[in-house]
Amino acid sequence: MNVTVRERTSQAAPRAEVRQAVVDCDIHPAVNTPRELFPFMTKRWQEHLLTYGNHIRQGLSNALAHPRMQPEVARADAWPPDGSIPGSDAAFMREQHLDGNGVEYGVLIPLGRSGASQRNLDYGAALCSAVNDWQLAKYCDFDKRFRASITVTQEEPAAAVAEIDKRAGDKRFVQVLLPPRTVEPLGRRRYRPIFEAAVRNKLPVGLHLGGVGGHPSTGSGYPSYYIEEHTSQVQTMQALITSLVVEGVFEDFPSLQILLIEGGFSWVPSLSWRLDKHWKKFKSEVPHLKRAPSEQIRDHFRFTTQPIEEPENPRHLRDIIDWVGVERLMFSTDYPHWDFDDPRQALNNAGLSEAEKKKIFSGNAKAFYGLP
Amino acid sequence: MNVTVRERTSQAAPRAEVRQAVVDCDIHPAVNTPRELFPFMTKRWQEHLLTYGNHIRQGLSNALAHPRMQPEVARADAWPPDGSIPGSDAAFMREQHLDGNGVEYGVLIPLGRSGASQRNLDYGAALCSAVNDWQLAKYCDFDKRFRASITVTQEEPAAAVAEIDKRAGDKRFVQVLLPPRTVEPLGRRRYRPIFEAAVRNKLPVGLHLGGVGGHPSTGSGYPSYYIEEHTSQVQTMQALITSLVVEGVFEDFPSLQILLIEGGFSWVPSLSWRLDKHWKKFKSEVPHLKRAPSEQIRDHFRFTTQPIEEPENPRHLRDIIDWVGVERLMFSTDYPHWDFDDPRQALNNAGLSEAEKKKIFSGNAKAFYGLP
Repeated sequence: MNVTVRERTSQAAPRAEVRQAVVDCDIHPAVNTPRELFPFMTKRWQEHLLTYGNHIRQGLSNALAHPRMQPEVARADAWPPDGSIPGSDAAFMREQHLDGNGVEYGVLIPLGRSGASQRNLDYGAALCSAVNDWQLAKYCDFDKRFRASITVTQEEPAAAVAEIDKRAGDKRFVQVLLPPRTVEPLGRRRYRPIFEAAVRNKLPVGLHLGGVGGHPSTGSGYPSYYIEEHTSQVQTMQALITSLVVEGVFEDFPSLQILLIEGGFSWVPSLSWRLDKHWKKFKSEVPHLKRAPSEQIRDHFRFTTQPIEEPENPRHLRDIIDWVGVERLMFSTDYPHWDFDDPRQALNNAGLSEAEKKKIFSGNAKAFYGLP
Repeated sequence: MNVTVRERTSQAAPRAEVRQAVVDCDIHPAVNTPRELFPFMTKRWQEHLLTYGNHIRQGLSNALAHPRMQPEVARADAWPPDGSIPGSDAAFMREQHLDGNGVEYGVLIPLGRSGASQRNLDYGAALCSAVNDWQLAKYCDFDKRFRASITVTQEEPAAAVAEIDKRAGDKRFVQVLLPPRTVEPLGRRRYRPIFEAAVRNKLPVGLHLGGVGGHPSTGSGYPSYYIEEHTSQVQTMQALITSLVVEGVFEDFPSLQILLIEGGFSWVPSLSWRLDKHWKKFKSEVPHLKRAPSEQIRDHFRFTTQPIEEPENPRHLRDIIDWVGVERLMFSTDYPHWDFDDPRQALNNAGLSEAEKKKIFSGNAKAFYGLP
């Protein structure tokens, strides 16, 4: 990793008072060095990590190759006092974010060292398991407000299912975490056992923007600029919904609940309209699809708020929220990343009532994750 | 399909006498129209075929897009008298090829209408099953010399396994047929159940050059010319061997036997040397790999002869045959395609003894397929 000269502040700046307690559905923990995971890995995989390293990219560019998405690039003020990687110091995170921003619960979304898309499936499974142990040891044991995500190797469903079954009894884990960019569209049957295991264990599935499936993020190949890549990730979210719906995943698992993290949601109505229209015409191609796509989308998907779309006319955002449903939105900050949403400012211009804000900032997430 | 003006002859030209009986491991049957498959498909899939058609390409170009690889493009003299597609008239094929070329057994390799890589997995399974029934009804029932291949949907292993189990009891089927170009390298665990079913049913697996996995055939994308595409298919064969060996498929299935069809074999030694060299250095990455790659390749792969490499110095071909092993080679013609190998001319300059020729032209295939 290329940590060179960066602006760092050793203390969180003084902040305005917090309006209300929030559940933050998107906090990124980080390792300072991969060796932090060694206590949770066998000697074979420790040596593998040092000798062969990661092998995650089938294709070329992916979002993670952009410095902005590297785990060590973050809000300038999120660097811990000792200069370690933002997100890697649980005590500093507690002080700056949990205490500083009134976070009642914070859901950890480990990205940088995830084993999810490792091509070496055994190494991927070992890495996922280590990351799961590490979340508990470093964060959840340190502060009761942290909740963990079960990282799994989606390309090896048998190992993913075993990991879900192993972790589901521990209530500190609140969801299964999958990457949106996979080797095949996520609704394909090969991934079905993972959804079966999530449903069987009464766990929702979270998908955080990004991933490294090896394919370009657009239908015309790799884009040139970070701004394009970041935007194209949202199209991946749309493709993911399309695949899950059209392949009939929700017909098979009527209780499955999915949370899309950091993908926005203002595109949900237009996608739903298009799907409904086509479904009416092409029912004979997909006779397994009994319910309108829009119904399935409304029943099975939830969305985090950051980074929220900001139309010029706030009424338009309110219209979209009404279509998607206030109860389908869950607040998130993306701490400690550069595009952090501050709970003091977020959603101030959406014309929401206090009761609606309460749902979005904490109530919906508590119900979704079964938090006390 | 774009069948326009082509040179056709209604009769096979008079030929020199046949030297010896041969087993032809690569004969391509063809349908005149997809409706030929309708007796073997349910109404739903008949309508699907007519309404939605095939959906096989994830990516762009593939070998099948070249006119030379279209089923209706063939030896000019292979057009049946009534103008139907070459390969589609069993009686003409019997007269021109089985009788005309002394074919004792001919193994059918259906390509053009295969359901193997259909993205709609249920349609793919229905099409594979129909093609399997159709081979029996149209060819095997017509002439006892024909043998069939079990086409399966490799991207839906459960359906492939069911099809293999259903067909294996019928001795007219002599192998499972898979396409070399798949969604992931063929050694990946997702495909393992297919090899398990083949081994359990004591069937070898044949892979004929080509396929439509959706990926470019080269590591730098889609080539410009047919000559490049055709050559790059051989690199796919090399990748396929590499994947099957390195992922440990033969460690799991020590009795699995694979036939590579139309990919040549002169590249087998150099590939083996490279793999052995790397294996010695990187054993710790693949501790499941107990035996040298070259040993595994020699034990588990066989190769058909057409189109055989023709070095300037015939001694070089003989050296390669010695390395690969005379008993690993099986004669094929590719009838009725344009690059047909005539048994009268093939392998005349390789310095083979009569006993060796007999093995390659028929003995090896009889042993491999268990032909009477």
